Amino acid sequence: MTRRVVVVGADAAGMSAAHQALRAAGRAGRELEVVAFEATEHTSYSACGLPYWIAGRVGSGDDLVARTAAEHVEAGIDLRMGSRVTAVDLDARTVTAEGPGGVEEVAYDDLVLATGAEPVLPDWARDDDGAVLAGAGPVKTMDDGLAWLDRLEDEDGDVLVVGGGYIGLEMVEAVLARGRGCTLLTRSRFMHVLDPDMGQRVVAALRRAGAVVREDSEVTGLDVDGGRVCGARTSGESVSANLVVLALGLAPRTGLVAGQLPLGKHDGLLPDARGRVDTGRGVWAAGDCCEVAHRLLGEPRFLPLGTHANKHGRALGDNLGDPSSRLTFDGALGTAITRFEGGGEYLEISMTGLTEEVATEAGLDVVASTLEGTTSSGYMPEAEPIAVRVVAERVSRRLLGVQVVGGHGAGKRVDAAAAVLWHGGTVDDLAWMDLSYAPPFATAWEVLQVAARRVAERL
Amino acid sequence: MTRRVVVVGADAAGMSAAHQALRAAGRAGRELEVVAFEATEHTSYSACGLPYWIAGRVGSGDDLVARTAAEHVEAGIDLRMGSRVTAVDLDARTVTAEGPGGVEEVAYDDLVLATGAEPVLPDWARDDDGAVLAGAGPVKTMDDGLAWLDRLEDEDGDVLVVGGGYIGLEMVEAVLARGRGCTLLTRSRFMHVLDPDMGQRVVAALRRAGAVVREDSEVTGLDVDGGRVCGARTSGESVSANLVVLALGLAPRTGLVAGQLPLGKHDGLLPDARGRVDTGRGVWAAGDCCEVAHRLLGEPRFLPLGTHANKHGRALGDNLGDPSSRLTFDGALGTAITRFEGGGEYLEISMTGLTEEVATEAGLDVVASTLEGTTSSGYMPEAEPIAVRVVAERVSRRLLGVQVVGGHGAGKRVDAAAAVLWHGGTVDDLAWMDLSYAPPFATAWEVLQVAARRVAERL
Repeated sequence: MTRRVVVVGADAAGMSAAHQALRAAGRAGRELEVVAFEATEHTSYSACGLPYWIAGRVGSGDDLVARTAAEHVEAGIDLRMGSRVTAVDLDARTVTAEGPGGVEEVAYDDLVLATGAEPVLPDWARDDDGAVLAGAGPVKTMDDGLAWLDRLEDEDGDVLVVGGGYIGLEMVEAVLARGRGCTLLTRSRFMHVLDPDMGQRVVAALRRAGAVVREDSEVTGLDVDGGRVCGARTSGESVSANLVVLALGLAPRTGLVAGQLPLGKHDGLLPDARGRVDTGRGVWAAGDCCEVAHRLLGEPRFLPLGTHANKHGRALGDNLGDPSSRLTFDGALGTAITRFEGGGEYLEISMTGLTEEVATEAGLDVVASTLEGTTSSGYMPEAEPIAVRVVAERVSRRLLGVQVVGGHGAGKRVDAAAAVLWHGGTVDDLAWMDLSYAPPFATAWEVLQVAARRVAERL
Repeated sequence: MTRRVVVVGADAAGMSAAHQALRAAGRAGRELEVVAFEATEHTSYSACGLPYWIAGRVGSGDDLVARTAAEHVEAGIDLRMGSRVTAVDLDARTVTAEGPGGVEEVAYDDLVLATGAEPVLPDWARDDDGAVLAGAGPVKTMDDGLAWLDRLEDEDGDVLVVGGGYIGLEMVEAVLARGRGCTLLTRSRFMHVLDPDMGQRVVAALRRAGAVVREDSEVTGLDVDGGRVCGARTSGESVSANLVVLALGLAPRTGLVAGQLPLGKHDGLLPDARGRVDTGRGVWAAGDCCEVAHRLLGEPRFLPLGTHANKHGRALGDNLGDPSSRLTFDGALGTAITRFEGGGEYLEISMTGLTEEVATEAGLDVVASTLEGTTSSGYMPEAEPIAVRVVAERVSRRLLGVQVVGGHGAGKRVDAAAAVLWHGGTVDDLAWMDLSYAPPFATAWEVLQVAARRVAERL
């Protein structure tokens, strides 16, 4: 008997799940039919690549597409583009979808929710009808990217970026790359994903590159002229701007099942490591509409990242297609990386695990320390400054987190620390394990290890 | 009562031990006197930096010196430069040293052997008196570096490099950087520290850069004219060259204690994790005169690398200075990195753990696979090719090793794999753990993880 799987959302999580379900079913000798609904006209694209596309660093929007709709269809997925699922009946196991061919109801055996996340758009960014004001917009979808390319084509002048996270940072790079002035406003501190001393290193680089960065500066409203944005107000001042990037974060998109399935503290769905939400009713979920098990905090967090979506989607698909699967998505560490390039500045920024701030909030007794060093042996022309912050738990000596800010080659160093966290290792493991060394790549005592040693000596 | 420590050899291991012994003794409230003998006029320099100095990429030889003799003295070490220890009486606890002031005998409570390694110099590279032929020389010491700068100044023409390991590779880079033609001869295959398919990627890059690489080409003799080298002979051919780099590897320098202390299979001393060789007689050792515990092979290997010397020296010093120390050097994984830059080519080369070849020789049942990908998301201008080879044990799924060859940002990726090996993790850990992703730095499924996944699927 052929089972039918309905997938809602054809981006990283949904399509990873769909393809892997077919592969796993084939392996297990089971018959599976996969129907996928995608509300937009875009599938399996790199949302993380949008700022670089807007910056003009990527040839074309098509380059961001990992797999086209046609490729999904060729792989045997019944993909319905431009079809929005408007209702789900979890007991009857049916979805209602509105697409180019009208409204249809489709029955399923298994439902995969992969609806992703949506940008936070405050009331002050909308008109009376709830539409985002002309001149302002988020950076989440391919359509957002196209809109930003158009806006930068049509409008001169400086750009205001609202929001102090990764997307805010990357959009400052994009705006500067387009030769525009840039002001960034953030309601608390910039790069709050890092501890303050590390975040300030990034702020300093942005300022040296010519961007205006104002922290503790919460936007309370936008000024409008002729239906278009012309400025922003904070509690203390006014900033004129006819283009405003809304980079205020994301929220899980779960409206379709609101009230029907339990949500977590961060309003995301709560699948298990195999992607199961409700086994009795055949409901699965993965990706940015979900919270992710945080291995260090021991509770789910909202970490909307393509890596988790891909991994969780794949594990889900394998289990859906083959009940004997042993693939599980065993949670995240909060590992992340980005960079800032512009105005002669170049910084790689990365982190894994907990900052001192987050660890302390979680009630842990920690020791943290920041070390400055170089990415290569000091005598090599490649050597650039790097700062490494290490956070460890006092009594257990357990490594809790590492943050890195530095030049070329700095950022990816965080992966070695992520691996130690993954295994529940100590700060001594990080300090003493056998990492690679040669003059173009490191100092003889790798900076990550000296930083860990310094913390170890204070425990 | 003040204990006296005599350190033989004032490079990475010896000086790490000396400084840390003083710090640890201070911490423990113990009185310690450290006398260190250094046969040469150089101390604490980066031997790994020599090829880059010879290449002209480093400003001056002084830049390679991490700490000068004066700085060691200032830190309280009684450092005797140009003093060669010629004899040790382990029972009487005395050393005999010949220095600028003549011969002296010094008594000690603890002896630290840090005599390092010496380059392998075959008979065919020497004259009848045992001296290395003019025009030929190794690349091991500061004096070797100076000699190579002189030779390249004095002699025109192409350079022959004999030896297919890291130093051979780095000297090809140096020779090309100096605008010279370069031929490399190696008796088996080039970069034999990698599995063959990975090594061949490096060979191909060297050839594209204009170097001549001849594998399975063992040198049997040098031709001499007027007391100077003018060519080399292999079993099959003659190569003319008036400069010959001898990069045939290193051997532990243990002549001082030959017959008095047990040596390992690779002729190195065998200290424990605290650096102790003979507790009853107060003998310690660290660095390149020792073999190093290999965590995966479960037996000592000769791995002459500055990182191990620094770490083992520090652990030794801490234990010597403070018997309650808990620092231990818990062995190595064989992690290493280098690069090749020249003739428009750029390759980073790294490895950790066991190759398929070594693992199979060790009797392990392995699965290995090489994956090609990109260092960044394919649509980013930074993206460069990268190849990752993963080796895992079949039944246990244990990760055994990873090799990487690729463009900018490829090499240091190996550290994440080293951390998994350090913790005894599986290939599934490598495939599924939370590594950093953003388009300038990786693909959404990090290439290391896809490579691991492919192997995992074959187990």
